[in-house]
Amino acid sequence: MKKFFGDDVLLGSKAAQKLYENHAKAQPIIDYHCHLNPKEIAENKQFTDIGELWLAGDHYKWRAMRQNGVDEAYITGSASYEEKFRKFAQTLAYAPGNPLYYWAHMELKQLFGINRPLNDKSAAAIYREANEKIASGGFSAQDLIRRCGVKVICTTDDPADDLAYHKQMQNLFVKVLPTFRPDIICFGLNRDDILPYLERLGKSENTEITSFPVLLDVLEKRLDYFVSLGCRVTDHALNTLPPEKGTFEDASRAFELVKNGQKVDKALLDRYTDFMTRFFAVRYAKRGMVMQLHMAPLRNVNSRLFARLGADCGIDVVGDPVSAAHLARIFDEIQQEGELPKTIVYCLNNTVNDMLSSLLGAFAGDTPGKMQLGSAWWFNDHVDGIRAQIHALADAGLLGRFIGMLTDSRSFTSYVRFDFFRRILCGEVGAWVENGEFDPDCGDLIEAVSYRNAKEYFGF
Amino acid sequence: MKKFFGDDVLLGSKAAQKLYENHAKAQPIIDYHCHLNPKEIAENKQFTDIGELWLAGDHYKWRAMRQNGVDEAYITGSASYEEKFRKFAQTLAYAPGNPLYYWAHMELKQLFGINRPLNDKSAAAIYREANEKIASGGFSAQDLIRRCGVKVICTTDDPADDLAYHKQMQNLFVKVLPTFRPDIICFGLNRDDILPYLERLGKSENTEITSFPVLLDVLEKRLDYFVSLGCRVTDHALNTLPPEKGTFEDASRAFELVKNGQKVDKALLDRYTDFMTRFFAVRYAKRGMVMQLHMAPLRNVNSRLFARLGADCGIDVVGDPVSAAHLARIFDEIQQEGELPKTIVYCLNNTVNDMLSSLLGAFAGDTPGKMQLGSAWWFNDHVDGIRAQIHALADAGLLGRFIGMLTDSRSFTSYVRFDFFRRILCGEVGAWVENGEFDPDCGDLIEAVSYRNAKEYFGF
Amino acid sequence: MKKFFGDDVLLGSKAAQKLYENHAKAQPIIDYHCHLNPKEIAENKQFTDIGELWLAGDHYKWRAMRQNGVDEAYITGSASYEEKFRKFAQTLAYAPGNPLYYWAHMELKQLFGINRPLNDKSAAAIYREANEKIASGGFSAQDLIRRCGVKVICTTDDPADDLAYHKQMQNLFVKVLPTFRPDIICFGLNRDDILPYLERLGKSENTEITSFPVLLDVLEKRLDYFVSLGCRVTDHALNTLPPEKGTFEDASRAFELVKNGQKVDKALLDRYTDFMTRFFAVRYAKRGMVMQLHMAPLRNVNSRLFARLGADCGIDVVGDPVSAAHLARIFDEIQQEGELPKTIVYCLNNTVNDMLSSLLGAFAGDTPGKMQLGSAWWFNDHVDGIRAQIHALADAGLLGRFIGMLTDSRSFTSYVRFDFFRRILCGEVGAWVENGEFDPDCGDLIEAVSYRNAKEYFGF
Repeated sequence: MKKFFGDDVLLGSKAAQKLYENHAKAQPIIDYHCHLNPKEIAENKQFTDIGELWLAGDHYKWRAMRQNGVDEAYITGSASYEEKFRKFAQTLAYAPGNPLYYWAHMELKQLFGINRPLNDKSAAAIYREANEKIASGGFSAQDLIRRCGVKVICTTDDPADDLAYHKQMQNLFVKVLPTFRPDIICFGLNRDDILPYLERLGKSENTEITSFPVLLDVLEKRLDYFVSLGCRVTDHALNTLPPEKGTFEDASRAFELVKNGQKVDKALLDRYTDFMTRFFAVRYAKRGMVMQLHMAPLRNVNSRLFARLGADCGIDVVGDPVSAAHLARIFDEIQQEGELPKTIVYCLNNTVNDMLSSLLGAFAGDTPGKMQLGSAWWFNDHVDGIRAQIHALADAGLLGRFIGMLTDSRSFTSYVRFDFFRRILCGEVGAWVENGEFDPDCGDLIEAVSYRNAKEYFGF
Repeated sequence: MKKFFGDDVLLGSKAAQKLYENHAKAQPIIDYHCHLNPKEIAENKQFTDIGELWLAGDHYKWRAMRQNGVDEAYITGSASYEEKFRKFAQTLAYAPGNPLYYWAHMELKQLFGINRPLNDKSAAAIYREANEKIASGGFSAQDLIRRCGVKVICTTDDPADDLAYHKQMQNLFVKVLPTFRPDIICFGLNRDDILPYLERLGKSENTEITSFPVLLDVLEKRLDYFVSLGCRVTDHALNTLPPEKGTFEDASRAFELVKNGQKVDKALLDRYTDFMTRFFAVRYAKRGMVMQLHMAPLRNVNSRLFARLGADCGIDVVGDPVSAAHLARIFDEIQQEGELPKTIVYCLNNTVNDMLSSLLGAFAGDTPGKMQLGSAWWFNDHVDGIRAQIHALADAGLLGRFIGMLTDSRSFTSYVRFDFFRRILCGEVGAWVENGEFDPDCGDLIEAVSYRNAKEYFGF
Repeated sequence: MKKFFGDDVLLGSKAAQKLYENHAKAQPIIDYHCHLNPKEIAENKQFTDIGELWLAGDHYKWRAMRQNGVDEAYITGSASYEEKFRKFAQTLAYAPGNPLYYWAHMELKQLFGINRPLNDKSAAAIYREANEKIASGGFSAQDLIRRCGVKVICTTDDPADDLAYHKQMQNLFVKVLPTFRPDIICFGLNRDDILPYLERLGKSENTEITSFPVLLDVLEKRLDYFVSLGCRVTDHALNTLPPEKGTFEDASRAFELVKNGQKVDKALLDRYTDFMTRFFAVRYAKRGMVMQLHMAPLRNVNSRLFARLGADCGIDVVGDPVSAAHLARIFDEIQQEGELPKTIVYCLNNTVNDMLSSLLGAFAGDTPGKMQLGSAWWFNDHVDGIRAQIHALADAGLLGRFIGMLTDSRSFTSYVRFDFFRRILCGEVGAWVENGEFDPDCGDLIEAVSYRNAKEYFGF
């Protein structure tokens, strides 16, 4: 029996251990997609409590605690962080195989030097011990970034954002770069706050968005502004894929309806979204930028909790699979209008992994690994999901060209997820080597997937 | 090489063996969902022939024999049980990995004390030996229940049923409780026998169902009657999910059509089914009952065999996956009208496992494990399927809160499926422990999933 | 650590190695579905260059090279085969787990006697060494067929084909038999070349296809002609499944539109395809032939590459899953009109494996393994995909009745895929044996799946 979260955890063979020790462990980190708050980095937020660090905003943990029947007071309510931490510790004892179990124990070990099972019995002592460690230093936002060897962080930002903190951090020891995420513009036309948003967006370029062409012009200027601050990555939510082509006229009509205070029906909104996605894609390609597509979440399904807690409280779920026909159509049309940008596709419904891996290959070319099957996302970011993504890549593509991990996180302790991923990666490649199915001299591939591919792909 | 179906079968590590021996093996059984005939329990049916015991009604075995090209005379026809048993034995030799292979050999070993491969050569001797064992006693319905350590059996019953046998068994050594399954009412409006059924249902409450409100009133009374006899569980077949909300008016209109001898179109029937499902759900919650949803079978697809043999002859298949959007809608609407009851969701199409596991988490709360991803059902009840269900639970939820196994069976020898499940469970949890990925001190979790969770969840 | 592609590669247990050595390794080959050119067999095409052998027509390799960012000049362009070979070797170093990696190294070892990793460094030497081996003989089309122990080859042929080469080869050491593949007729009505095609088809029976009944008559004659030359297998592409029944009148109407130079709309074309599929199925059954259905590819998704390179250049992808309801409907209607032929179903979207495995069981009967879940096809033809198919079969059917592997290939070196498959098969069955879950005396099952089942199923 292996030691509990020992140094060889998740490394199932000698070959895996060797690859990990020699080629993965010490690689720097590029977190090319996360939801860290740039303000907290810039101001070097200080933490004092592991309860706050872990439970103040982490809807993964909230969700698990609800599944354990924990009262909401101990989740998002008024209980103390010590009480919340204990309830979370109790929950973990029911969670073998859950990524929270791995993350919690890897964070405790690697960041706090604590290496024993967290459960009801150990909760109080671990809470105290962890907070003592925090008090002794090394747990500010920038400390954690530095300790984890992070070289690049790409935050997630709205086109209307002034990126003041990014500007302020241009000479920091770590590159903190904005990501262009035009979600409200691409599919939020029916939001109640769309008109004030358009006003704010216009103001960001000292103009008033009086017509659809003006909107497009402002957006392109915002894109240039983001690029001027080092932005290399963009991000689009595509909860569902538009089934058919939307023209400039469709999109313009939808915009005019909104300007006149009306709602846009589903079919027209889809055509609008399709037009906007293609509009951006072509412009990303021109600038050598990377487009991320995040597909298939179903959001805020529990109205009662939504009314109480709002978005991002743990009530988003895996949505229905996307259609191969729809996605192929969009890519093909982008390519007919201009160039496809480098693209990373994430689908929350992992039953389409193999389909995506094959589809992306049909649009390959120009640059190594141009079309990427994104790292196991959100509900898939666990041992099984990461293995499934690695195999989908290997089976129908080139694992060695994968740009690897990201955190997608709101937390400064989530960098252990890189180690989590690298161990699983080395576990899989190591198994092929161990079984005589791959070249034992493949350390370069591990280094590439752990770090170098991302660096080259994004051009950091 | 391990011994053929030795004591450590399906236990892949030392940790797994230890968990199984110390925490799983001796747990009692709660079979909270099966299709046993209460009459056969009450009258303590005596078996004399393993051929009858295995082949008289088991469409899993019939199906496999057809796949082996066996003539129908030896399946559902007039051949002797000895001949049928031999044909089944021949079939098993082609069935590595099939659950029938495991079940047959585990039943032979645990119930008959016979532990060698069943095949063409061994069939005659095993047939004789097994029947000698039966003749020597211990193979009546109640004997088998007692020998297997069964504490609770929930049969599956129609609302119009008088539950006479359940009443008769109220002081039996095992709790035999009814399950409220209103399928005919919920989606059978177009059945040819619907009007006689409604008459029978009315009579069960000494009334005539003259209107839709009367129907609802009678149903609620039947529910109370079931509860009065210890019913804690209900069951709904949802072969497909209704895509949109049905109102009282919709449902009432559908009912009136039927009363007037007309058929209901698909769209209205779906709205009717939606209304009825929500109607019941809210009432289950009020009574603290558990709602089971069995989704996505496609039934009786082979018209020729159906014409000859009727339903449940081995011609039902895995249907298309259910939609996340539809299921989330139903749950959310139930919660807007009242409370969601404790709910167990089974989907025959296992590609939605991960989706369901995530979706159920969004409606968690109140009680530990309130929303359950059901045990691997029917075509999924095999080693791969059980492992997949365990991982879907672990990856996006709390495996330790799972209420565990059931038989879903018509047979009194199916209780070995609990042992089958527990071995696989210990195999998976044991692997995490063995690999240093979970607390070695997790015997309580194994006991909970094997028995205690079900006891507490249903309140037996 | 095992030796790189040593003799025990893919054989994970002692039991697996024993089954492979004693029961799989030496079995002859029946390649019941491939795309070899009968002319190349008949004329005994001579190869002189491993670059040509591997890269002249293999869109699997082209696709991988594009994913590696290789310039098209080195893929389908004017670069020399030596240069192309080198670019392919570089690509392989990024492809752990990819079937190309296995195939390339198994071909090098088994056909060329070269057993070391192919990569940038080794490319030049291996290229030279392989070409020396080719020059020393044993690499003509017929040499390769003979060396690999192939007994039967079924090519893929159009109903209008005169099968001249098949006639010519009737006394060859290997049976080279035609496959009846009426794709243009079944769903190609809107092709630009449909009218010339119909003219050519008519001429093949010395007639003019003036009406739909004449078409059906000609097709049945062509079918008889194919049968007269040993054809036992047919093949239908069903990229999508027709959702509802098409009648003779529907099909006739579609045909008349085409004869008048008009296009057929999607709904009518689907009904036409449905009618034609059923028309053929019933006639296959009468002749004791086997029907293959290849479902769910999405073809030529990249318009830009298609315009440049045409079909089969590596831009087909996995399409959306087929519907259980649609497939069950078609099978049931065929059975209502006549008999279902022996049928092999392949679906490129492997998420339906379990559904298909269950559905096929509902139409079982008459003959062992009548309804076959086809071998892992195309994008699924890799270690994971083959294992998944084996498990889908085992879980819901009879693995021992599986007719096993085929190449589906255009290349004369692809026969190593049989060895690839047999190793994986022995790996899985061996694991069950090793773990005490299956009869150790199962060599006969391995022989059957490796060779004998196909021989008996097709009646070769």
